[in-house]
This record gives sequence, structure tokens and C-alpha cells, in this order.
Amino acid sequence: METVVDQVASPRRVVIVGGGFGGLFCAKALKRAPLETVVVDRNNYHLFQPLLYQVASAALSPADIAQPIRTILRDQQNSLVVLGEVDRVALAENRIYVNGEGVPYDYLVLAPGAVDNYFGHADWARAAPGMKAVEDATRIRSRLLLSFERAEFDKDPANRSAHLSFVIVGGGPTGVELAGAIRELAVDVIPRDFRRADMRRARVILIEAGSRLLPTFDPLLSEKALRQLVELGVDVRLGAPVTAIDEDGVEVAGERLRSHNVIWAAGVRAAAVVQSLGAELGPGGRVKVEQDCSIPGHPNVFVIGDAAYLVDSHTGRQVPGVSQGALQMGRYVAKVIQEDLKGKRRLREMGFHYRDLGSMATIGRFRAIAQIGRFRSSGLLAWLGWLALHITVLIGFRSRFSVLLSWIYSYVFVRRGSRLITRAGPAPDTAPAGQRQPATQPR
Amino acid sequence: METVVDQVASPRRVVIVGGGFGGLFCAKALKRAPLETVVVDRNNYHLFQPLLYQVASAALSPADIAQPIRTILRDQQNSLVVLGEVDRVALAENRIYVNGEGVPYDYLVLAPGAVDNYFGHADWARAAPGMKAVEDATRIRSRLLLSFERAEFDKDPANRSAHLSFVIVGGGPTGVELAGAIRELAVDVIPRDFRRADMRRARVILIEAGSRLLPTFDPLLSEKALRQLVELGVDVRLGAPVTAIDEDGVEVAGERLRSHNVIWAAGVRAAAVVQSLGAELGPGGRVKVEQDCSIPGHPNVFVIGDAAYLVDSHTGRQVPGVSQGALQMGRYVAKVIQEDLKGKRRLREMGFHYRDLGSMATIGRFRAIAQIGRFRSSGLLAWLGWLALHITVLIGFRSRFSVLLSWIYSYVFVRRGSRLITRAGPAPDTAPAGQRQPATQPR
Repeated sequence: METVVDQVASPRRVVIVGGGFGGLFCAKALKRAPLETVVVDRNNYHLFQPLLYQVASAALSPADIAQPIRTILRDQQNSLVVLGEVDRVALAENRIYVNGEGVPYDYLVLAPGAVDNYFGHADWARAAPGMKAVEDATRIRSRLLLSFERAEFDKDPANRSAHLSFVIVGGGPTGVELAGAIRELAVDVIPRDFRRADMRRARVILIEAGSRLLPTFDPLLSEKALRQLVELGVDVRLGAPVTAIDEDGVEVAGERLRSHNVIWAAGVRAAAVVQSLGAELGPGGRVKVEQDCSIPGHPNVFVIGDAAYLVDSHTGRQVPGVSQGALQMGRYVAKVIQEDLKGKRRLREMGFHYRDLGSMATIGRFRAIAQIGRFRSSGLLAWLGWLALHITVLIGFRSRFSVLLSWIYSYVFVRRGSRLITRAGPAPDTAPAGQRQPATQPR
Repeated sequence: METVVDQVASPRRVVIVGGGFGGLFCAKALKRAPLETVVVDRNNYHLFQPLLYQVASAALSPADIAQPIRTILRDQQNSLVVLGEVDRVALAENRIYVNGEGVPYDYLVLAPGAVDNYFGHADWARAAPGMKAVEDATRIRSRLLLSFERAEFDKDPANRSAHLSFVIVGGGPTGVELAGAIRELAVDVIPRDFRRADMRRARVILIEAGSRLLPTFDPLLSEKALRQLVELGVDVRLGAPVTAIDEDGVEVAGERLRSHNVIWAAGVRAAAVVQSLGAELGPGGRVKVEQDCSIPGHPNVFVIGDAAYLVDSHTGRQVPGVSQGALQMGRYVAKVIQEDLKGKRRLREMGFHYRDLGSMATIGRFRAIAQIGRFRSSGLLAWLGWLALHITVLIGFRSRFSVLLSWIYSYVFVRRGSRLITRAGPAPDTAPAGQRQPATQPR
């Protein structure tokens, strides 16, 4: 891609792989640097992943939580955005390969994010799709909505209850938020629209192998979250490892649960592209990076965000795979690179330190938990805090208002504005067949 | 589907095929009738098709112009909504078959709408997709946006201009509105986001085989629309029949136009399901119905909307294939059925008469044409009228505000809120391959 070099003032180029929180904030932090930044992403948009579960549960539209990366970096003249798939990193050549074409770099920042981790059970992916991309969320949404359509006309009580059983595997924030949202959809939003099946019978089962929900939170809040979910009517199973998943349901702690709607939220691993680094990998295929987020022996190559494994030397704790972690690493690496250009090493020697700004999870309407520093909150206050925070941090003017509007619709009018069953994409999935030969099984 | 009969008070059932304007307004008009209405649609939502072009041009999200049929009919206790594909109509049995299951009716109202008509060139569908469904619109949107991504990095001037050539076949309202919207996208919205290719060079070519645009409008307005499009920079070709379409472009009036973005808006024909009626078909495969919209020999079976061919006995003109036509037919048939129950025939004998409430088309921001009765308008006034009308008629509280918001974003801030390149569905299309092996061809 020499042509790109031709066209820029500075010969120095930072190639950033991934337009998520890590990559995007790294690029933005380099706005005034005498550098060219090239952001490569397989999608043309930055996705606000923490709200993806709201697309899956028909509250928001994809466009509400996604903005074109180009638009975000529009006024950043030193940035170039490339839509493409990164095949591999060739450290020896200081190049990455995008759709087979070599793209040279002076600095490389890998922020490819994570993919669903089935812990060796790849065959579960088909029956229990995860939720990492827009297409995943719309596919899950279609499958959810289709289940109600099927339940309406299925006269076999066993089948009907299978259609109305929604199983979520994984008690982390995604699982907890999804369980709450689906339960509310089934109990508050959907029933009025149907005539025959009683959708309030819908069961939402949240399965967690560990002993408590939200393991990264204060145990007190895990307890609160559990209580709030149970209040909502979610069937929470703790210490219950899943031993089998197929089209017809899951097997958990020896028990068979019939369901045509199993969603995987049990864990993630680093995107495969980092394997081409040949660096040592930690848990979840994350790259074991140095304290400055670079990889051993390559001070100009950094891995940040969900793809990086870094134990903070201050706290002795692993930097968590959350947006704040990625975002802070992105900004840190941007500073390190700028120091490098000046021949300084101060920040490198200091190393990256994660600043915990707190974490939150919504359990549903008016229900949430939050911990900020020593502060703990649950219920309405936490929920309002969550609402305010997410409205303000959402990237993009339009999204913010559109989301606010959709939330008024969801939370005040108890409706869902995006209840569309659309034909799903090519990815492996049970839904499309079901959709092209739709819903009703009248007998 | 006897079970359905069991469950309802009234033994009389009206089965309505299609939840578009015709079917939906027919069902709504039967709200207080001592009847059961069953609305069958292959989608779970009513689509506000007149604005589909705004989804294709990245201004609106699908959820902005679609509402679940169940939600619209929620409070109508005598209505049942069935998500399903209608295989055929069995007149002799008084049943239709939905996903292979027989559904008996006392009255049948067929409002299946129209599909793209390639006039015997089925092979053109792949290279020149039409725009009838949500999936079509999102697929066209992805292809449009992808073209700019490709143009950004394609060093071959000929290829670049092919990426930046958008050809719309058909000068009716859809073609005119789409041409204006795409030209504005390319000239006002997109360029600021790119660094290398000058997207203002994008050519939008609108091809019409006939001698003027918008043939159903007053010739004066056709002229105005032409002028407005030309002002926008659209290359309009009149009296120019398309003789060939393939992946690399079109052949029009002997000239070869290279383009990777050809969109079909040249005509529609009735949905195939009406063929199973064995009734006589008029132009575009429309069913030649009696003056009361019933089919010859079957006073209890009606065909309305785009699938019906009816010459209004007052005006001597064919009822146009527009939403108003379908909507008015739907309401008329609902009244006829209710009279029937009372043994009256007044409305049947009067026959259906189309009331032309006027028509409008937007050419772009602040540009439109409108004719209402003798009144003719073009430019800003017509555009404001168009805006007001569409905001008010949009079905569903949430949509109305969300659309208003998106339009403020599009028209005031000159941005587009839904610029997402998503993986397309299974339908035949060139885009998915392009998307999974994206965009850049850096050399």
C-alpha cells in the first residue's frame, strides 16, 4: 500500500487493527501526532458492544449503537480508514496482510477484540449462537421473536414450552442483562399482541457454572443482581455447568432442559489473528504482553483490549476485558508511541495501569447494579446512573437521541421498537431455515 | 386450522393475505364486525414501503418504517395474525394453504402486493436487485456503501468510476426518489469521510424507457422533477430502453455504462400466489377483478391492491398500484363484507371507485413535487407537504418520532444515520461475497 505512504506528509505510520474501543481511542489520541494512522476493520462501523443485547432484545436498532468509523475520524486528517479483513501479521516484514495485500507499518496496534469461546465445543455454536456482531444480534432477535410466533400455534404443550424456554449460558454482564431484557420482553411487551398462547409462561433460564453471578463484581452486588433477576421471574441456576447443547436444548447438571433458544454468553477468547504473532498466549488465547502492552522483542507492536493478557503490576490483577480496559490501553499506547518519536521512555517504564472507573449492569427496567470505587448501589439509583452514563458516552449525536427515544419507548411505554424478524445472514444458524419456512404449525 | 374456529365466538371468518396497506386497512375496518379476521403475512411486520428507498440510502433504519402487524392489531380482539407463507388458494375447498396447512375461510381477501417485474429478463435480477423488502433495501444499502469503500482504494480510474456509477432503471417515483437520495449521499454526505477518491465524482444515472419521468403525474411536474434531478446532478436518460444488464453494468440505447451498482425500479407484477386462483390475469399478472373487487364467479373472494387489475367505471382509468389504491380497496371490501352479512348489496352494485387524494414524490432535500386535485406544486412547499404527510401517516408512535429525528439528522445536519454495511441475507446477490472479502484493493 505504498500509495498510501506517497499521499501522506509523515513517513511514520501507525496501523491500528480494529475500530472498537481500544483501536478507536488510540487513533483519536494520535490526532495531533506527526504520524499517519491507518485503522483497519472488517466492519465499516464502530459498534457500541455493551448495548448489543438491546438489539437482540428488540429495543434498539443496529444503527442506534453503530457509527461509521470514517465519520468518527472524519476531521482527523492524519487518519485513513480501511475496510478489510486482516489475514495475518508478518512481524519480520513489518507488514500486516489485508485481503492478501501487504500493508507496512512503523507501529502496529492490534485491537481485534474477542470472539465467543465455546471451550472446545465448537459444535455448540450452531445451537447456541453468541452475540459479538450486529448480525449475531439481529439473528438472535429474529429467533426470539419467531419462537413466540411458533408458540402461538403449536398445540403440543411440550413443544410450546420448548419454544417459550429461553436459555442463556453465562452469568456475566451480557448474560445477566440479556436474561432481564428477554424476560421483560416476554412478560411485559409480547403477551398483549398474542391471542392464544400465554407468553407470560415463557421461562428464561440463566445458567452460570460458577457459584455466583457477575463474578467480577462485589459479591454483595452479585447477590443483589440475583435477587433482582429472581424478582423478574428469571430462573437462575448457579454452580450448574452445561454438559451438552443441541438444537433441542441443553443438559445442565444432569438435567435436560428443552429449548429452541439457547444463547451463549459464557466466555470469549482473543480474535484468531493474534495467533499469527507467534507470541506466548495466556488464558483465552490472549497475548501475554509486556507492561507497556508491547509484545516481547517487538517494542513497536502492541496488543490491547480483549486480545491482550496483562497483569497490572500495581494491583496484581489482570486488566479486565471491558470497554474501559481497551479504551485506556488505547490511549496509553498512543502516548507511548508519541514519546517514542521524541526518544523518551518514561511511560514505557511506568507501564500501563488500569484505572477502575467502576462497573454497572442493568437487570431490566428500573433495575441495575453499580460499583464505583467503594460506592455500591442497586435498584433505581443504579439504573438511572446506568441510563445517564450510556446516553452520554454513546458515540454519535444521532445515536444518543435515537437511543434516548427508543428507551423512552421501551421503559416508559413498555414497548419494543425494533421487533423485526428479518432473514438472517449466511453465518451458521438455525434461524434462516425457520424463517424461510415460517412460524405457524397449525394442526 | 379448525382449532382457530373453536376458539372464536363467531363462525364467520375473513382470511386476509398480506399485511400491507390493503390487507391491514381491510382488517382494521372490520374491527367491529361480527367476524373473525385472520391476517396472514410472510413477515411479522407491516412495511411502510413508500419510504423503503430511505433505508436503501442509509437515512432510516428498517425499524423506523416497519411495525409488527400484531402490535398494530393488538386491541382488535377479533383478529388473529399468522406468520406464514401462502402456498396456494384452493377455491373449491374455501381454504388457503399456509406452510402446507389448510386454513378455511368464509371470505378471502388477497392483498399479497407486488414483486419486481424484469419483463422476461429474470437473469437481470442478480446484477440489478429491486427494492420491495427490508432485506432488499439493506442489501442495496450495503452494496452502495461498499462501492465507496472500493472506490477509495481502487487505483484503476476505469474501475473507480465503475464503483462510483450508480444506475437506476425506471423513472417512476421509486427511481426518482432513489436517484435523488443516492446523489445527495454521494455529494453531500460521503465525501468528507474519505481521503483519497473524490466521491463528488460519483455519477447517478436514472434510466427511463418512456419519454418522461413519473408518467402517472402531470407532464408539467414530470418536467419539474427532471429539472430538479438535473440540478442535483443526476444524469437522466429518457426514451432509453435497457437492452442488457450484467455484473459489470448496463447497455442502454446501444451505449455501454459500466457500473457495479444497478438498481431495478422499472416495474412490478402481482405476487405469484394469485396465479393459483386460475382467474384471468391482466397486465403485470394482476387479477382482473369485478367492479366490487371480487373475482368472477366467487363473490366471497377478493383481490385488492397491487395484485388487482380494476378499471374504475367512473374514470375509465385503472386503479393505480399505490398505497392509497390498496388502502381504499381494503376499506371498501371490508364494507362490502359487512353488508353481505346483512344481506345487502348496495356497495357491491356501486362498485369500487378510486378517490385520488393526490400524489407526491421527493427528489431530495427541500425538493419535491406534488399534485393534489387541480393543485400543482414543486420545490420547497411540496417538500414540506411531503414531510408533514409522511410524518403524520407513519404507522406507530415510535416510528414517527424516530423518523422525524433521522430526518432532522439527514436534512438539517446533512448526515445519514444508518450507514451500516451488514452481511446480506441468502437471497441471490453480489454483495455478500464482496462483503466477506471486503473492500480494499490496495496496490
